[in-house]
Amino acid sequence: MDLDVVRKLIKPAETKIVLLVMDGLGGLPRESDNLTELEAAKTPHLDSLASRGICGLQHPVGPGITPGSGPGHLALFGYNPLEYQVGRGVLAALGIDFDLQLQDVAARGNFCTLDKNRYVTDRRAGRISTEKNKKLCALLRTIELPDVDVFVETVKEHRLLLVLRGEGLSGNIRDTDPQEIGKKPLLPQSSSSEAKQTATLVKQFLDQAQEILADHHPANMVLLRGFSKKPKWSSMEDTFGLKSAAIAAYPMYRGLAKLLGMHILETGPTVEDEFTVLEDTWNDFDFFYVHVKKIDSAGEDGAFDRKVAVIEEVDKEIPRLLKLNPDVVIVTGDHSTPSLLKYHSWHPVPVVLWSNHCRSDKVEHFGERACMTGGLGPQFPAEDLIAVALANAMRLEKFGA
Amino acid sequence: MDLDVVRKLIKPAETKIVLLVMDGLGGLPRESDNLTELEAAKTPHLDSLASRGICGLQHPVGPGITPGSGPGHLALFGYNPLEYQVGRGVLAALGIDFDLQLQDVAARGNFCTLDKNRYVTDRRAGRISTEKNKKLCALLRTIELPDVDVFVETVKEHRLLLVLRGEGLSGNIRDTDPQEIGKKPLLPQSSSSEAKQTATLVKQFLDQAQEILADHHPANMVLLRGFSKKPKWSSMEDTFGLKSAAIAAYPMYRGLAKLLGMHILETGPTVEDEFTVLEDTWNDFDFFYVHVKKIDSAGEDGAFDRKVAVIEEVDKEIPRLLKLNPDVVIVTGDHSTPSLLKYHSWHPVPVVLWSNHCRSDKVEHFGERACMTGGLGPQFPAEDLIAVALANAMRLEKFGA
Repeated sequence: MDLDVVRKLIKPAETKIVLLVMDGLGGLPRESDNLTELEAAKTPHLDSLASRGICGLQHPVGPGITPGSGPGHLALFGYNPLEYQVGRGVLAALGIDFDLQLQDVAARGNFCTLDKNRYVTDRRAGRISTEKNKKLCALLRTIELPDVDVFVETVKEHRLLLVLRGEGLSGNIRDTDPQEIGKKPLLPQSSSSEAKQTATLVKQFLDQAQEILADHHPANMVLLRGFSKKPKWSSMEDTFGLKSAAIAAYPMYRGLAKLLGMHILETGPTVEDEFTVLEDTWNDFDFFYVHVKKIDSAGEDGAFDRKVAVIEEVDKEIPRLLKLNPDVVIVTGDHSTPSLLKYHSWHPVPVVLWSNHCRSDKVEHFGERACMTGGLGPQFPAEDLIAVALANAMRLEKFGA
Repeated sequence: MDLDVVRKLIKPAETKIVLLVMDGLGGLPRESDNLTELEAAKTPHLDSLASRGICGLQHPVGPGITPGSGPGHLALFGYNPLEYQVGRGVLAALGIDFDLQLQDVAARGNFCTLDKNRYVTDRRAGRISTEKNKKLCALLRTIELPDVDVFVETVKEHRLLLVLRGEGLSGNIRDTDPQEIGKKPLLPQSSSSEAKQTATLVKQFLDQAQEILADHHPANMVLLRGFSKKPKWSSMEDTFGLKSAAIAAYPMYRGLAKLLGMHILETGPTVEDEFTVLEDTWNDFDFFYVHVKKIDSAGEDGAFDRKVAVIEEVDKEIPRLLKLNPDVVIVTGDHSTPSLLKYHSWHPVPVVLWSNHCRSDKVEHFGERACMTGGLGPQFPAEDLIAVALANAMRLEKFGA
């Protein structure tokens, strides 16, 4: 659904919506009992919500498409992820809480290894330690470029963030990462005419970086990709009339929320901490985005039982959420991360939406196979969830006369 | 899903996908026991596939739209049939294995009957015999036009194919078939300026044809429609990275596959023959399109029992397919052809997709009503199947970071 269609129907209300994102929620069945992580977990409170709510499976981008975390979340917030794309450089900046400005150009970097003829022999420089990375970033920070500020920040292991700040910069710069070994780093070419000056600056940065890193084998060069600028998008409040807040322990998710103008609430690292923040700030916002990361992490580690345990941990907090008397509750994930695959996957994600007026279906358990027969259907586009939530929150006028 | 979105996510893999198209698969229930052809058929192997796979009903073009064979297949191959349209002239050429070149303009023709005032009295010339058609086509082949080669080919009964070959030809020519009796044949008008010369040539052809056929009542004229050129589309290999092959006993299906750059494998006429070709060429391709025509033919003849029998014949071959260890198997049709209607219909088509990671649903039989509750849903867009197949074949990167 086009944002503009929804935007025109917005009416004010005093209702509150909670979107609980269990990152990487969807899974695949293990062989022993043919149950997925969510099906195996004991989730009496989520099951109760499912039996009173309307369920389904949603896909953030489209059938068969495995979503990254950015697109997965944007879809849940109602922003079509094919239309609203965030560059990798910007995402890297969000991921370390870097305070990106609208004029900045950001790129994701890897330390890499070049042989004496400048061919890439390792795109990750043997995955150097984060400690080593910090020392090298300190060296790269000595690089000076005409008329722009240079920021070089450690992300983790071999990964770093480069940000140039100044007037007239463009993100239309091609990757220098050749994506395979045995090739030379590519030149930072401009892909549009207004990016020529930026390309020259990046080239100067790389020339100096090569000199500085020459004796630091295996990390004797950097590869850059995902040059991008922070997008200027209509906020959740401007689009949907929702005074919105994000409760997320991990920086990248706070960063994504910030792109949509959400208020970022400080939280401790545990699920319990996050629900405490929700309680403490309940009166201040219309829309709460609560993000639980550890489910995805367990999935990526292939830790079926741990994923089950974190799901159960979240389930225990659901009564605290319901006690606040929300008008609409959505529980879902931004993508599936089956322990079996140890990675994000294309499988659609269980979703339950509850309100007093949701017209519940016959689903009685919150699980992949149960949700297939739910009222939202087994292939619901995630970007349409927000309109259903707004409707259930009595925040939408009718369309047409 | 936009082809360009999928194309950018393609990654190489060694996996194999089989798409088995049971032409006209979907049906309607007979009165006696309220079972459709597929539901009445004994299909233990397809049922087993359904119980281990993910099922649904797919529509090639859209809800309520009855697909022709061209659109039905293009959708299954991932090419949106509203965007990728093949002209009737081109389809007619494909249907008789005519080796159409990119410069050619093709039109479908009917022998028809005109009265002495040139009004059409029978658009099909009393459905003359194919023998008679061949004799008349031989006469029409004597027509010469300046700077172009003229091909006139018998299709069947009153139907023929006209192809003009030369430089600068255009397919933007209006039909000369007035579509009803009591009217005169229309002039072959150009619908764009670059088609003027082609229109002149077609008019010259028709003038000569009228003279030649004058004494051959009831076939004393031809009506032409569907002027078109062979489209230049991105191949399955360029689009999806799939080295693709088609196993189809009927020319039109081979022709459609050829439009997408598939390798055409020689096969005998039976279902068994086709699966033997699959076995013999298994190591040479990533994607196999296997087409079984006889199911549709039985449906068009209104032969419920024969349609059941052909479905059972295909079921018997499924073990040979599975023995090859494919990574992904899709079984579906390009449209429904209920024996009850004796024609293509708009009813969505049963589909099962199996892989080791497909997240199976609770469907245990391969049939219309069983598939309605499957994980793909009862209204799955056929064009999205290929992305799900590629995902299950581990051939897609994630979208965004």
